[in-house]
Amino acid sequence: MAQQARFQAPTGTRDMYPLALARRRYIEKAWRTISIRHGFDEVDGPTFEHLDLYTVKSGDGIVSELFSFTRAGGEKDYALRPEFTPSLARLYTAQAGQLPKPTKWFWQNTCFRAERPQRGRLREFLQWNCDILGAENRSLADAEIIAVVVDLLEHLGLKPSDLQVRLNDRAAAVEVLTACGVTGDPIAALGMLDKRAKMKPEAFAELCTQSGLRIGEFDQKMATVAAAAGRVLTGMGTAEDATTLATMPGIAGLAEQLKAMGIGQWCAVDASIVRGLAYYTGTVFEVIVDGERAVAGGGRYDNLIELFGGPATPAIGFGMGDVVLSLVLQDKKLMPSDADLVRQMGLSPDVYVISNGTPEADAALSGTVATLRRTGLHTRRSYKATKNIGKLLKDAADAGSRFAVILESGVEATVKNMATGEQSKVPLAELSAALKP
Amino acid sequence: MAQQARFQAPTGTRDMYPLALARRRYIEKAWRTISIRHGFDEVDGPTFEHLDLYTVKSGDGIVSELFSFTRAGGEKDYALRPEFTPSLARLYTAQAGQLPKPTKWFWQNTCFRAERPQRGRLREFLQWNCDILGAENRSLADAEIIAVVVDLLEHLGLKPSDLQVRLNDRAAAVEVLTACGVTGDPIAALGMLDKRAKMKPEAFAELCTQSGLRIGEFDQKMATVAAAAGRVLTGMGTAEDATTLATMPGIAGLAEQLKAMGIGQWCAVDASIVRGLAYYTGTVFEVIVDGERAVAGGGRYDNLIELFGGPATPAIGFGMGDVVLSLVLQDKKLMPSDADLVRQMGLSPDVYVISNGTPEADAALSGTVATLRRTGLHTRRSYKATKNIGKLLKDAADAGSRFAVILESGVEATVKNMATGEQSKVPLAELSAALKP
Repeated sequence: MAQQARFQAPTGTRDMYPLALARRRYIEKAWRTISIRHGFDEVDGPTFEHLDLYTVKSGDGIVSELFSFTRAGGEKDYALRPEFTPSLARLYTAQAGQLPKPTKWFWQNTCFRAERPQRGRLREFLQWNCDILGAENRSLADAEIIAVVVDLLEHLGLKPSDLQVRLNDRAAAVEVLTACGVTGDPIAALGMLDKRAKMKPEAFAELCTQSGLRIGEFDQKMATVAAAAGRVLTGMGTAEDATTLATMPGIAGLAEQLKAMGIGQWCAVDASIVRGLAYYTGTVFEVIVDGERAVAGGGRYDNLIELFGGPATPAIGFGMGDVVLSLVLQDKKLMPSDADLVRQMGLSPDVYVISNGTPEADAALSGTVATLRRTGLHTRRSYKATKNIGKLLKDAADAGSRFAVILESGVEATVKNMATGEQSKVPLAELSAALKP
Repeated sequence: MAQQARFQAPTGTRDMYPLALARRRYIEKAWRTISIRHGFDEVDGPTFEHLDLYTVKSGDGIVSELFSFTRAGGEKDYALRPEFTPSLARLYTAQAGQLPKPTKWFWQNTCFRAERPQRGRLREFLQWNCDILGAENRSLADAEIIAVVVDLLEHLGLKPSDLQVRLNDRAAAVEVLTACGVTGDPIAALGMLDKRAKMKPEAFAELCTQSGLRIGEFDQKMATVAAAAGRVLTGMGTAEDATTLATMPGIAGLAEQLKAMGIGQWCAVDASIVRGLAYYTGTVFEVIVDGERAVAGGGRYDNLIELFGGPATPAIGFGMGDVVLSLVLQDKKLMPSDADLVRQMGLSPDVYVISNGTPEADAALSGTVATLRRTGLHTRRSYKATKNIGKLLKDAADAGSRFAVILESGVEATVKNMATGEQSKVPLAELSAALKP
């Protein structure tokens, strides 16, 4: 391999210097804060798994999208984690008897997909999941899952005008499909709806004819449902709307819960949301920013835990990646400025220590810095040979330090408050007390 | 593969349930806190790299210890990261012109080694690195690196009686080896010393004879050096000690700096510490707990950045893994109890909301919980059908919540301080203000 390629990160992965990493940590911190606030406990699993943990759920088709490998000596086939749900299913299944009902878990870590990198997609990225398993009240669990996504986006500064939670109920959609003439496998018809936006209208009409679907009637029914649910979500529901939704308990119950939680105005029923994955069984949703970019998606998967050998367990969850979310925050100027980021992430120094250049002060520098650090203060120092105190104070200011300490002898220092410019003399023995926030 | 194997984590990896993960997060938080306090900035790189990023430094011999793979379609050979240093060298090299001197970076993330799992060794583990690159004052940089390890261990509750930083200077050791008769490659002689503890005395004596090393003389000289350095480290150095160390500026300068930083009592010169890796050029050290378990190790690698195509750059760093450290903390009863851990990690609820079972209170539950969460309070609720308030209050206590809120109508609630037992009535509209910490 050429020397140059050797010294580059693999395609679709990222080298992260401090400021770029602080931006990632900002997102991770928001994910964690909101997850905990909503009562989720964190879990984690291996970065790589036995390959067939993934094929059991998604079939062999997924293999081409995986980074899979056999270790030298060839014990077994492994794959880098493309998503966390199969690992989560194993964790839940192994302890199902002892876990609370519901179990609310969050997870945030790296995932890997061997697809061609493009804007919004990388080969290594971060993903955040929240899942509620074993909740008997499905509407409540569904709404709690949507609430945590909405709260995260609101926490990061996004507004209802920026985004919409588009939701649907696959069970309800199947009923309407059947009522509108679908005679074959209704799941196949859902798949057809999933591909609709990417098809030519004539081709889609042709598919409808083949499956027996009277698409005009279907669209009209779903539009009526969406309008009724929209009024319920915003607290304007009528008796007529209740009648319209009576045969769709999934949508009706969820809309009521979302309204009760005060987040109905962020949500809308959208018949085009069916989600590709075969394992979704009920509520499905996508969070769409500016009408086009999906920053999160999820749904109910009531059969998956059984598929992994566990007890029948109602479950719902979502995933959000860091790549699209970062692009959205940048585009909307919601990522803090570098200086704010450093402050908010607790990365600004408490104190920056410099010597006035006398031998006594030079000799006291290392010890003073070490003592301040040991008392818990984020302490930086100058490593420069210069004795120009003005220049060194500028370094302290550039580092964003709260205080500068100028050592003048082995016994005393000048402490400068960098925000106010105020200065005072402090004996070295009292320094850390004087600098505590 | 058998169903059972499919549903287990791969050998040497870990499924982490909430409490186990909280213990890992406790260690990660300590690493981060101490790194930042000592003025290190965080960087990160890809989880997998081009395979030859690792072979350039360690030779092809390392390949058998790696999880390496070729993606289906076979673009290139990749390997899961066994350590971060090669990635760090790339990051530094790519930006060397713009980076400050010194550059102080820390990193903490997962590493992977395809070795047989055993106590203290897993195939996937966490590693913490701190590195100082481009520091002209080598003794100062070496001492700062040792200080950050010592501060971490002290922060976690370990004492000088629990552990020792055993250090050596490979350059000084090479000089003494040469003075004691070694005529061939002194690096090979260092390798011999590295293996000494694992060899039979007769076999080692045979090797000494072959290489020309007068081992008795070598041991005596190094013992004299260690004793002199020991006195310098603890502030008892004499003029004679200065003379003994005069030809060993690495050891003398480092001992002075460690003394100045007030951590000399944690350190000792130990001629048996030479570290296996060929790329170390000066100071090397290991942090040994109870005289046997290495929790961290590191050294100076002044030629590595050049090997990766960067400018000549003095550099020193260390690595610490989570597995041995966790064992040490458990053995010494320094890992907080589960309840303390949950509190310290900010995982205890602020408030636990229950309904008194009236329809008005039931109806207010979801909305109240959602509102409290949105104001930033970690809010949990009961999902149970029971209306036994005593049982529900016990759930609130078991969750470690600061407050319980008992909804009694749509307009008012009883707030119970779980620590004092104190109760008061609060209108729902004023709840979040009443509960703020």
